[in-house]
Amino acid sequence: MSKQKQQMNLNVFIMNAGHHEAAWRHPATEPHRITDIAYFQRIAQIAEQAKFDSLFLADGLAVSNNIKHGAFVGLEPFTLLSALAAVTQQIGLIGTVSTTYNEPFHVARKFASLDHISKGRAGWNIVTSGSDFEAGNFSSAKHLAHNKRYERAHEFLRVTTGLWDSWEDDAIVIDREAGVFAQPEKVRAIQHEGDTFHVRGPLNIPRSPQGYPVLVQAGSSEDGKEFAAQFAEAIFTAQQTLEDAQQFYRDVKARVAKYGRNPDQLKILPGICAVIGATESEAKEKEQQLNELTVPEYGLTQLSNMLGVSLFTYPLDGPLPELPNITDINGNKSRFQLVADLAGREKLTIRQLIHRLAGGRGHRVFAGTAVQVADQLEEWFTQGGSDGFNVMPPYLPAGLEEFASQVVPELQRRGLFRTEYQGSTLREHFGLSRPVNQFAVQSNKNSQII
Amino acid sequence: MSKQKQQMNLNVFIMNAGHHEAAWRHPATEPHRITDIAYFQRIAQIAEQAKFDSLFLADGLAVSNNIKHGAFVGLEPFTLLSALAAVTQQIGLIGTVSTTYNEPFHVARKFASLDHISKGRAGWNIVTSGSDFEAGNFSSAKHLAHNKRYERAHEFLRVTTGLWDSWEDDAIVIDREAGVFAQPEKVRAIQHEGDTFHVRGPLNIPRSPQGYPVLVQAGSSEDGKEFAAQFAEAIFTAQQTLEDAQQFYRDVKARVAKYGRNPDQLKILPGICAVIGATESEAKEKEQQLNELTVPEYGLTQLSNMLGVSLFTYPLDGPLPELPNITDINGNKSRFQLVADLAGREKLTIRQLIHRLAGGRGHRVFAGTAVQVADQLEEWFTQGGSDGFNVMPPYLPAGLEEFASQVVPELQRRGLFRTEYQGSTLREHFGLSRPVNQFAVQSNKNSQII
Repeated sequence: MSKQKQQMNLNVFIMNAGHHEAAWRHPATEPHRITDIAYFQRIAQIAEQAKFDSLFLADGLAVSNNIKHGAFVGLEPFTLLSALAAVTQQIGLIGTVSTTYNEPFHVARKFASLDHISKGRAGWNIVTSGSDFEAGNFSSAKHLAHNKRYERAHEFLRVTTGLWDSWEDDAIVIDREAGVFAQPEKVRAIQHEGDTFHVRGPLNIPRSPQGYPVLVQAGSSEDGKEFAAQFAEAIFTAQQTLEDAQQFYRDVKARVAKYGRNPDQLKILPGICAVIGATESEAKEKEQQLNELTVPEYGLTQLSNMLGVSLFTYPLDGPLPELPNITDINGNKSRFQLVADLAGREKLTIRQLIHRLAGGRGHRVFAGTAVQVADQLEEWFTQGGSDGFNVMPPYLPAGLEEFASQVVPELQRRGLFRTEYQGSTLREHFGLSRPVNQFAVQSNKNSQII
Repeated sequence: MSKQKQQMNLNVFIMNAGHHEAAWRHPATEPHRITDIAYFQRIAQIAEQAKFDSLFLADGLAVSNNIKHGAFVGLEPFTLLSALAAVTQQIGLIGTVSTTYNEPFHVARKFASLDHISKGRAGWNIVTSGSDFEAGNFSSAKHLAHNKRYERAHEFLRVTTGLWDSWEDDAIVIDREAGVFAQPEKVRAIQHEGDTFHVRGPLNIPRSPQGYPVLVQAGSSEDGKEFAAQFAEAIFTAQQTLEDAQQFYRDVKARVAKYGRNPDQLKILPGICAVIGATESEAKEKEQQLNELTVPEYGLTQLSNMLGVSLFTYPLDGPLPELPNITDINGNKSRFQLVADLAGREKLTIRQLIHRLAGGRGHRVFAGTAVQVADQLEEWFTQGGSDGFNVMPPYLPAGLEEFASQVVPELQRRGLFRTEYQGSTLREHFGLSRPVNQFAVQSNKNSQII
């Protein structure tokens, strides 16, 4: 098999002071620097030196959490990633952008621009947004229903991929003598007329090094999996157990094949928040210390938003109340299901559940030595649970430094992770092919030369 | 008077291979690098070394010109400016963004992010977009009427300034011991309910170093001047003669006063495309050479779009046909007027008019020695025609290098331009005050604590 098949892909998921919700209270973090670009540039350089595939940025379009006790606020993905592109050479740059509260022309253009600026390192984590908080910032009375958001996302992708293909790769010729800058027959209006969007095109930026940014998807609902199977080249997913991960892996790879795509062309990357210690007990202690720094009000707000029910009137040391039916959840359906399953399976009190979620908001948290962490990653990777991982340091930058200096070398010793970048684009890191231009190879029946 | 009053402000207006429409055919330019960030980073560093106030980027949201013979396409402003912020320390970064085809939450957020990333160097050139080409890319059947675009722009500014003020400067406290990240009473929902926008807020990024980016405006129509007088801190304007510039200057400064603002807090910056030679005749020859490189079809497309009438059926060496009434122009009204006046005043043929516009699309073009250029700038600056200039190099990067190495030192010798940056933010370069937070000083009747 090819080398890509034997080695895992690892992203660093960056999150302000770290993924643990109490990271900002931990003495090793620098929470006053969440708007300081030098802080993120340093993190990017640590990650690049360790040969990570990419930096991954989450995003939301509203303040939805309890800002008194912590906040997911700060720099915006396109501007942040462009500033990181300028000080890195090889690491991929994946930004989360919503299809629900954006226009496809703007999104296609900004990703093409980021891909040019980074010389082929852009990735788009496609989300459909999860809350009424976001609707309220975009002149919408109510958040669009889950299935409607996915319908919009499908059309959004048809428009953006069309726009990225609106310039053929060799459209620009720059013949100074003849006065010909570009060949007009290689630049097309896309004339998209859909249910939601009417977009003429072409894009006002030439086709970028990767053709399209790497398309990533992060929802694991039924709609989300179908969307991913059709469009995505990587999935970021939350899985608590190897069995769940294996089932998800088989399910999604089979769906990919159903659409006539090669299953190798979609990488499945569960999140992992690793708390690393010199000994197992030191690691567990560290995790415990972080959990003790959580502020219950903050966790309650997060959990209430996640489950669609206010938990503030229930005793912290009692069980969850009865939850809404998943069909009534209009946010992140798969996360709702995961948390409900987790609480039921392990019979957790509300406080215990908050602690379980504090490290990764539903993503797997594992505390152990670097060797134990590597064992876990190897097991999931070799047992059909994943193609790699989204690494979520509990606190930053030290948690990344620990992973980079202890877990990465261990994986490299086992031959499970690269020791040098083999290519220069994110597609090359992930072993993904470059999209063929749909207009250059087909007859032009759906396009019109401008 | 203060030092700021005696010295002019100079931006470098960057435009791919240069402002002359045939720049890409000139052997000194590098048109194959219009998507290469290193090309723009070098230009930014030349400009910063010469102590320019800012880099200024135009923008459009469609391919509206003749791509066969040249093209205003390439990198997108937010991503480009963020990548430039990473390799510069002091120069301002002004990006053009439309209020007609954007959402205020996105725009407020991205400028706040750019302002944080650049540590206080962001500026927003506010435009309302000028064409049906753009409408076609944003699911709009028709371009919004001129006055409706300005109504939307007014409301857009009320929303964005509200969002920038939604965090007080000292909202984040990071009290690790007490578990308090931010003071909720200093972070507000803005609850904007207007004709077009309904935006709850707060913004999901803390208030930026400059409070607001420097607000720049580039339309000189009646609506544009009123908008500028109310909101703008700098105007980029096209003026062909000193008399016109003086009249515009007096007019706008009087309007500023009418809104109770200090006229010094709005800088008037006409564009100037300087073609520099060792002798006057060498400069004129250079200009002539550039004009001879123009492709008539390109200029005709540009001029037809500008004037709202197709000129392709009229003889190149004949006069303009009868033009539409300005009330029927739904694009850039002031540019229409300027071109119509210019053609009439100088009795130009279509070909002559294309050549007159080739260097600056309606902005003043002046060919001469560095001393003559400095004389012109000094005259306009000291005679009440401007507070500074938007410098538009006819070809890049050499045209900027010539201006930086020849004209800038001449202006410095005359005491008309700084020899060192005195401050670190764009507001400081321009001598503009930092906006006071509207919610922190007023009663909170229009705000609601979240």
